[in-house]
Amino acid sequence: MGGEGRRGRRQGPSGTREAIEASARRQFAELGYDRTSLRQVAIEAGVDPTLVTHYFGSKPRLFAAVAQMPFVPKDVIPTVIAGDRARVGERLARFTLGVMESPEGRGRVISVVRAATAEPEAARMIRDRIVHELLATIAEEIGSERAAYRGSLLMSQIVGMTMARYIVKVEPLASMPAEAVAADIAPTLQRYLTGELAEDTGPAAPQAPPG
Amino acid sequence: MGGEGRRGRRQGPSGTREAIEASARRQFAELGYDRTSLRQVAIEAGVDPTLVTHYFGSKPRLFAAVAQMPFVPKDVIPTVIAGDRARVGERLARFTLGVMESPEGRGRVISVVRAATAEPEAARMIRDRIVHELLATIAEEIGSERAAYRGSLLMSQIVGMTMARYIVKVEPLASMPAEAVAADIAPTLQRYLTGELAEDTGPAAPQAPPG
Repeated sequence: MGGEGRRGRRQGPSGTREAIEASARRQFAELGYDRTSLRQVAIEAGVDPTLVTHYFGSKPRLFAAVAQMPFVPKDVIPTVIAGDRARVGERLARFTLGVMESPEGRGRVISVVRAATAEPEAARMIRDRIVHELLATIAEEIGSERAAYRGSLLMSQIVGMTMARYIVKVEPLASMPAEAVAADIAPTLQRYLTGELAEDTGPAAPQAPPG
Repeated sequence: MGGEGRRGRRQGPSGTREAIEASARRQFAELGYDRTSLRQVAIEAGVDPTLVTHYFGSKPRLFAAVAQMPFVPKDVIPTVIAGDRARVGERLARFTLGVMESPEGRGRVISVVRAATAEPEAARMIRDRIVHELLATIAEEIGSERAAYRGSLLMSQIVGMTMARYIVKVEPLASMPAEAVAADIAPTLQRYLTGELAEDTGPAAPQAPPG
């Protein structure tokens, strides 16, 4: 973002990959997945379009390379689960809002959520990085049964909050102080983490046989 | 959808508009907003592309014309609010899952949610038709204070469930029986409808002066 002369034409290979990534990150965030073109990414990076294909192969692969989550699960999980089990939902709500209130974190998450509505690769990233590695792992680490299902319920509220507050921008939610929003979704997250769930009667998640 | 010869070339103006709408509805649902082109809509409708512009003006307007919600708020609200106030969340959860489990309802809602991530016109439709006319109205009709904020919290969980179960398809949530999912989100909706909220300390939603 400015200051590094990213728009100058690259001479050697050293900065090429980084320039393409920076350009791609910005365009995916700003234009969304569908409207981002490899050609425009190349132009903004100041490189020949063939180099984008050379380094990244295809648009889904370029997206997967640059659409990093703005957190590392193994760093986040210990701080969320440390302390009172009855307040894990509160800490997770605060962490979530904290990520989304920072412009860089918000940009990255919005980019992935937007892309996930149309692009299987981005949907997979949400399933793997957000649900499996982060949310279901938190549920599992605090000893809750049916952690995978709890992780997907948590994701529904967290992604939904992202949509409501930061993408669709529904008022007055969009203008509420982050702390108030975190406080209002915390009990939801806590219930999905540790509360009682409806009985699982479906064939899709069979119980292990006793013994 | 079949049976009516929608793909035949229109001769007169009588069926033209309807043919364009049917084609647009299908393509927006299947391809998403960005990938749908007025030209392809015209081709599938069997009409000249200039007629699409003639009748609908622009892609956002065409989208707004065909992206109807699969329900009419004034029909839905009485059935959701009738009965025990402590079970409005349960009835709203069941209604929501019922809409999403029907292929036509699901197609329409997914189309709007997808579009809302990139298109201001579709985001406005969610704010107006889903939050304001339906969810906030339900909160208001059952006598809850801060109905607009409650409506936006409800939307966050409902749109998030749409993302998780029907778009990103997170397992095991995506394969769970609809009744179990409705039962698990019902307490969330009930709390957003009638529960206590964190104190509103923000400048964005000032309280009316007393008296």
